Amino acid sequence: MDASSVYRIALDVMGGDHAPQATLEGAGKALADFAGLHLLLVGDETKLIPLLGHYGLKGDLLRRMEIIHAPAVVTMEDKATSILKDKKNSSIRVAAQLVHDGQANGIVSMGNTGAAMVASKLIIGTLEGVDRPCLAMVMPNTKGRPTVLLDVGANVDSKPEHLAQFALMGSVYAEQVLGIPRPKVGLLSVGEEEAKGNGTTKGAAQMLKEMDLNFAGNAEGNDIWNGRFDVIGCDGFVGNAILKSSEALAEGIVMGLRDSINQGWMSQLGGLLAKPAIRRFMKKLDYTEYGGAPLLGVKGVSIIGHGRSNGRAVTSAIRIALLAAEHRLNERIQEALALVQQTAG
Amino acid sequence: MDASSVYRIALDVMGGDHAPQATLEGAGKALADFAGLHLLLVGDETKLIPLLGHYGLKGDLLRRMEIIHAPAVVTMEDKATSILKDKKNSSIRVAAQLVHDGQANGIVSMGNTGAAMVASKLIIGTLEGVDRPCLAMVMPNTKGRPTVLLDVGANVDSKPEHLAQFALMGSVYAEQVLGIPRPKVGLLSVGEEEAKGNGTTKGAAQMLKEMDLNFAGNAEGNDIWNGRFDVIGCDGFVGNAILKSSEALAEGIVMGLRDSINQGWMSQLGGLLAKPAIRRFMKKLDYTEYGGAPLLGVKGVSIIGHGRSNGRAVTSAIRIALLAAEHRLNERIQEALALVQQTAG
Repeated sequence: MDASSVYRIALDVMGGDHAPQATLEGAGKALADFAGLHLLLVGDETKLIPLLGHYGLKGDLLRRMEIIHAPAVVTMEDKATSILKDKKNSSIRVAAQLVHDGQANGIVSMGNTGAAMVASKLIIGTLEGVDRPCLAMVMPNTKGRPTVLLDVGANVDSKPEHLAQFALMGSVYAEQVLGIPRPKVGLLSVGEEEAKGNGTTKGAAQMLKEMDLNFAGNAEGNDIWNGRFDVIGCDGFVGNAILKSSEALAEGIVMGLRDSINQGWMSQLGGLLAKPAIRRFMKKLDYTEYGGAPLLGVKGVSIIGHGRSNGRAVTSAIRIALLAAEHRLNERIQEALALVQQTAG
Repeated sequence: MDASSVYRIALDVMGGDHAPQATLEGAGKALADFAGLHLLLVGDETKLIPLLGHYGLKGDLLRRMEIIHAPAVVTMEDKATSILKDKKNSSIRVAAQLVHDGQANGIVSMGNTGAAMVASKLIIGTLEGVDRPCLAMVMPNTKGRPTVLLDVGANVDSKPEHLAQFALMGSVYAEQVLGIPRPKVGLLSVGEEEAKGNGTTKGAAQMLKEMDLNFAGNAEGNDIWNGRFDVIGCDGFVGNAILKSSEALAEGIVMGLRDSINQGWMSQLGGLLAKPAIRRFMKKLDYTEYGGAPLLGVKGVSIIGHGRSNGRAVTSAIRIALLAAEHRLNERIQEALALVQQTAG
């Protein structure tokens, strides 16, 4: 990381199932780990201040952080649009406002995903030239590398030009933040052949071919996991369904295996002996390693994490936000978009 | 099963990665197991006849089977429409023709999925009142019960009325073939709330509400695995992507765990001790238990299996075909469709 610059990240401390404990824990670790980080802790100061010391937020670290008071909390049950109405002074909205006002480079939230998306799109605002921001998810593939799937839920009923933009933004993200040179880009479809797909994907494929991208054609569902592509573009409806299905399937397999192993002393002993190996493998699947999903295409960095995030996931999400800011992700996205418009024009 | 009736199933013996060995093995087992089965083995007789005895197709069983000669084979690389042109005498097309001609109640094929779908739709033909046949997949959920996901690949760009019909046909299938009384039906979407979805799903939900179904609203990706629904309707694009993604993810987890356990003698020993438990669990996930995907909405039974099917999967697929014929699945589907039209009219 470029230690000479400092990037200001606003953390929605009240967001998430385990907030503010998990967010504060993640904040303390992030400040200790990342020298270039200045952290704005957005939340109810009466609740946060007494807890700071417990999570290592003390001494020198205090110079690289500040508390921004925001008394209201958006719960998981609240409507996403509540931040525009009765929850204007909620932590997520105030955090987004800091980016809008130039006080922060980006936000990190583990709270209500819909509210975080609305705050990012409407308060921070959409990047010029971007039709629709999209949510990118980094999936760990069987080659031990990441595959970026996007959109995973910010949009439905996407048009071909949206899909093409998602793929383009995903490619810039993979290159800049994940460090993958010239990422191999695919478009999710129902078969490898060009003729396979629906009306939207066929239109998007034509557009992607014209772009200055390493576009390799159609990807299939299995390609999300086998490492054949670095980036896979899709509509948010299918991306969201795949994401939720995959989480539940992986969890079901692991739980099912554990239950099965716990039946009978011999397999229990076996499970015990194999435990470190199993844990080592599970770490590879662990979403906390990846921290959160970037919402690409907004005028600032926006990382939206899982509600269940623990401290480790919060630290990872802050790291991702910092990387995106350092690598000037949005400038790179705008350059890529400008190039497309030039070619088209 | 109703032992007094005999149902005639045409097996595409040449279809599948392990054909004709796996298909013959499955055929032998099915004839031995199911008294009400009369099997038509469709394929190249010069290749099949010498192999019959080896797979137990001898003695009494021969009275309940016959060989229908079809010299051509549709490979996995062939275009689906090849059966309409140069591969008219292929095993899959000839099998479909037998149903069309009233010589068989249904077909089972483990070959080229596209060709099997074309043969079913165009040679067997679509049931009256069905707009688009759809492919249903039975997924094993974490409650140890089946969840029917459909469509998983026969259609893209489905309209609301198609999705509603898929869900209706899936419900009849779950009730008649899987024995689930009054199946709980969901519609795949991006959130539970009625307002969540795309234009197509919102339209379909309105139609499903009017039908005489146990329709419980939107399902999400995770609901495919948690047993909350018995039937989940979706467009074939998303169903296909989820199916392929899930297969690859489950395989990746199992392979990854195995690799991880094989590193170091202690975990190797552990893996060895836990092996029977692991195998017991894997059986629950095993697609061979489910045998194949029924293509619903054609004028006969059509079960399309995985190209990788082994003998066990072939037997299961034949069992499913037999069940569908015995329970007069198509009559029940037509009754359900007629009821919808009555209500609408």
